[in-house]
Amino acid sequence: MQSNPRILAFDPGYERLGVAVLQKEGGKEVLLHSDCVRTSATLSFPERLGVLGAATEALIAQWQPQAVALEDVYFAKNAKTAMQVAEVRGMLSYLAISHQLALFQYTPLQVKVAITGYGQSDKSAVSMMVLRLLGLHTLPSGKRTLDDEMDAIAVGLTCLASIRLGQ
Amino acid sequence: MQSNPRILAFDPGYERLGVAVLQKEGGKEVLLHSDCVRTSATLSFPERLGVLGAATEALIAQWQPQAVALEDVYFAKNAKTAMQVAEVRGMLSYLAISHQLALFQYTPLQVKVAITGYGQSDKSAVSMMVLRLLGLHTLPSGKRTLDDEMDAIAVGLTCLASIRLGQ
Repeated sequence: MQSNPRILAFDPGYERLGVAVLQKEGGKEVLLHSDCVRTSATLSFPERLGVLGAATEALIAQWQPQAVALEDVYFAKNAKTAMQVAEVRGMLSYLAISHQLALFQYTPLQVKVAITGYGQSDKSAVSMMVLRLLGLHTLPSGKRTLDDEMDAIAVGLTCLASIRLGQ
Repeated sequence: MQSNPRILAFDPGYERLGVAVLQKEGGKEVLLHSDCVRTSATLSFPERLGVLGAATEALIAQWQPQAVALEDVYFAKNAKTAMQVAEVRGMLSYLAISHQLALFQYTPLQVKVAITGYGQSDKSAVSMMVLRLLGLHTLPSGKRTLDDEMDAIAVGLTCLASIRLGQ
C-alpha cells in the first residue's frame, strides 16, 4: 500500500451507515468527506442492504480509496439487530475485498484508545478529540453531526494511526 | 417473475457454503447443479468472504437464476460463529439484490415443514425426502453428499414450493 493511503471508513448500521473518507496530507489527517447514509424503514432489510451497497460502490468510485476501515462489534443488546448489523458488515467487507482494497477492522475499544488514549472515554470525549485531531471546530458538512458520522470519522482516524504505527 | 423461475439456493456458512440450482421443468423439480464451496482455514475471514463471493458471482453468471433462496438462522450456540454466518448471508443478499434477483429467506423450520410436512424432522428424514422429491437415489454429483449441499437443495425445493403456493 502507498505510504499515505486514502481510507474509506464506516460505522456499520442498516438504518444509518456512517461514512468518512480521510487521508494524511503533509503529515496531517485530513477529512475529505463524511456523511450518514440513511435507509427508509418502509424498505425490507434486503432492500436496505441494496441501498447501502449501492452508496458504498458510489463512494469507492468517487473517492478511489486504497483501504476500507470498519468498526467491528460482536455483541449487541438485541441479537437480531446484532445479526443485521453483521450482514451489513459482511456486505461492506466483500465490497472492499472485491475491489482489491485493504480491509481493517477495529473494536470500539481500539477506536477509543487510538483517539483519546483511554478505553473508557464517552462519546463526547471522542468527538472532541476527533475535531481537535482534524483541526476543526465543527464538521465541514455543517449538519448537526450524527453519532454515526462522527464514529466513522473516528474509525478512519484509528486506521490512519494504526497504519502509521505499522500495526 | 416468470412462472418457472430458476433458483440459486444456499446454506450459508464461511467454512462450507452449500449451493444448489433448481428449476421446475414439466411440473417436476429438477436439480441442475449442487456443490459445497469450501474455504481454507489458512485464509482470513475477509479473504474467505472474497472466495465465497467470487464463487457466487460465477454461479450467477453461469446459471442466470431469477431468484436466490437462503437459509436464515438468527441464532447459534456460538455468538461469534453466528455473526460470521450473518456476514456471509449479508454478502449473499447483497449479491442477489445488486443483480436484480428476487430474494427469499426461509428458517430451518420452514424448510423442514416444506420438505417433510413436519417441523421436528431430523436430517436423514429431510435428505430422504429431498432425494424422493427429485426422483433420485443419490445426488448426481456422485460425491459423498455433505450436509451443506443437501441443505442448500432443501432450501431451493422450499423456495420452488413456496412460489408455487404464491407465498
